[in-house]
Amino acid sequence: MAGFWFTEKQTENFGITMKVNKTLHTEKTEFQHLEMAETAEWGNMLFLDGMVMTSQRDEFVYHEMVAHVPLFTHPNPENVLVVGGGDGGVIREVLKHPSVKKATLVEIDGKVIEYSKKFLPEIAGGLDDERVEVIVGDGFMHIAESENEFDVIMVDSTEPVGPAVNLFTKGFYSGISNALKEDGIFVAQSDNPWFKSDLIKQVMSDVKEIFPITRLYTANIPTYPSGLWAFTLGSKKHDPLKVAEERFHDIETKYYTKELHNASFVLPKFVKDLTE
Amino acid sequence: MAGFWFTEKQTENFGITMKVNKTLHTEKTEFQHLEMAETAEWGNMLFLDGMVMTSQRDEFVYHEMVAHVPLFTHPNPENVLVVGGGDGGVIREVLKHPSVKKATLVEIDGKVIEYSKKFLPEIAGGLDDERVEVIVGDGFMHIAESENEFDVIMVDSTEPVGPAVNLFTKGFYSGISNALKEDGIFVAQSDNPWFKSDLIKQVMSDVKEIFPITRLYTANIPTYPSGLWAFTLGSKKHDPLKVAEERFHDIETKYYTKELHNASFVLPKFVKDLTE
Repeated sequence: MAGFWFTEKQTENFGITMKVNKTLHTEKTEFQHLEMAETAEWGNMLFLDGMVMTSQRDEFVYHEMVAHVPLFTHPNPENVLVVGGGDGGVIREVLKHPSVKKATLVEIDGKVIEYSKKFLPEIAGGLDDERVEVIVGDGFMHIAESENEFDVIMVDSTEPVGPAVNLFTKGFYSGISNALKEDGIFVAQSDNPWFKSDLIKQVMSDVKEIFPITRLYTANIPTYPSGLWAFTLGSKKHDPLKVAEERFHDIETKYYTKELHNASFVLPKFVKDLTE
Repeated sequence: MAGFWFTEKQTENFGITMKVNKTLHTEKTEFQHLEMAETAEWGNMLFLDGMVMTSQRDEFVYHEMVAHVPLFTHPNPENVLVVGGGDGGVIREVLKHPSVKKATLVEIDGKVIEYSKKFLPEIAGGLDDERVEVIVGDGFMHIAESENEFDVIMVDSTEPVGPAVNLFTKGFYSGISNALKEDGIFVAQSDNPWFKSDLIKQVMSDVKEIFPITRLYTANIPTYPSGLWAFTLGSKKHDPLKVAEERFHDIETKYYTKELHNASFVLPKFVKDLTE
């Protein structure tokens, strides 16, 4: 199709709508409905099951904020795991940290990787880096089979429907804790506080039972519901709010700054209330 | 009409869409097209010239952030002017500050006041307070005729089209400076950094020529374009980032906190770049 408008209903009664110049690819994969489209406002975009995953224009926010907050919190991240994130954006940001020796991506749907490489090359480019191992497989199982292995784990999943449903369970966070080294850190995208307050409360509560340091931070992502996106960080030892000034080194970013690192944990009152 | 979807095109190629239970009022006023509707997601909403002005569910963000940031920055705000803001939400927040003896609202369109009182009573309620003077008139002219009078001026305008076009000019900021006392502060809503970066740059540059302290801060407003809204603050003496801890007193809010007061000035890198 060409020249139509695509609408994502973010709730039953509210959504975003955007002009699509043309559909680039559409496919029912083994796991989900995948769609790649060229939009007039946001550039090429990836949709899974009708939900916006990423766009060329605003992808930097999500990918920078998933990656740099935990990676600067950890004093020396060498071995990193990304669960999901088949578009490659988080991996691209991870590779900006010179301490990282190995980054593993476990994406359940190989088609996401394939079509991201094709239509979102500036996002997916890092996947071919020699420090990166790409595994097409089940992130939940990969976590369950790993022990004391990773410095940082990032969960870049879809919403808790379809293939990602296991990634929002206490069993999964427990597995993450085992897969992390003794001073490991994990981050998971946690949807938005306006429409999914119960989910945020549940995730915070579950993660708190397992990690001594649990914090929520947010970022503005215009193509995601409400424009305010939440991330849950669980840490065994290092507090993201106590990062030594000298730990921050210069990296090229469009959203993240070391000042924003701290400010992103300062929550609007109604969001803060969800975490207590 | 009943049971239809309303779409606001926030740019040529992108918009939000929402289910409208019923239209409450629609009128071509002397200045603009006014529409009040009951929406399924956001409660009652006010639209001017097809743009979302406010909704019952998310109005607290905008109104708290316009009012409390300058009012806590000023050590003793007594005389306050709100230009625009006929829905009354900023006035409601202003009245939470016990130091305020007088609050003047100058709204050009009396119909906005009339229908806000009718359909958004919990927003407009403060307009009947005895400390409040409501003037239906031209804010630009009111500013031009005032001198050394106000502690804080808030510009709660529509976009720089239609009746608000004069409120985005250097002449207006100059008039505001004259209307303020020697340690006065003003705040103006400044649209959003994703789609209106040129406007933000222009406003920052203009205000910097007139006020020794000029700063940009942001808040998340889901029904406004991109979900990230910017506010420009100009101050003759008091720095919003150097508010004495004891200055903050407890007020009831849903978004603003004293920690967020400071954090809201910490900008994403691409937004910070617009201010330099």
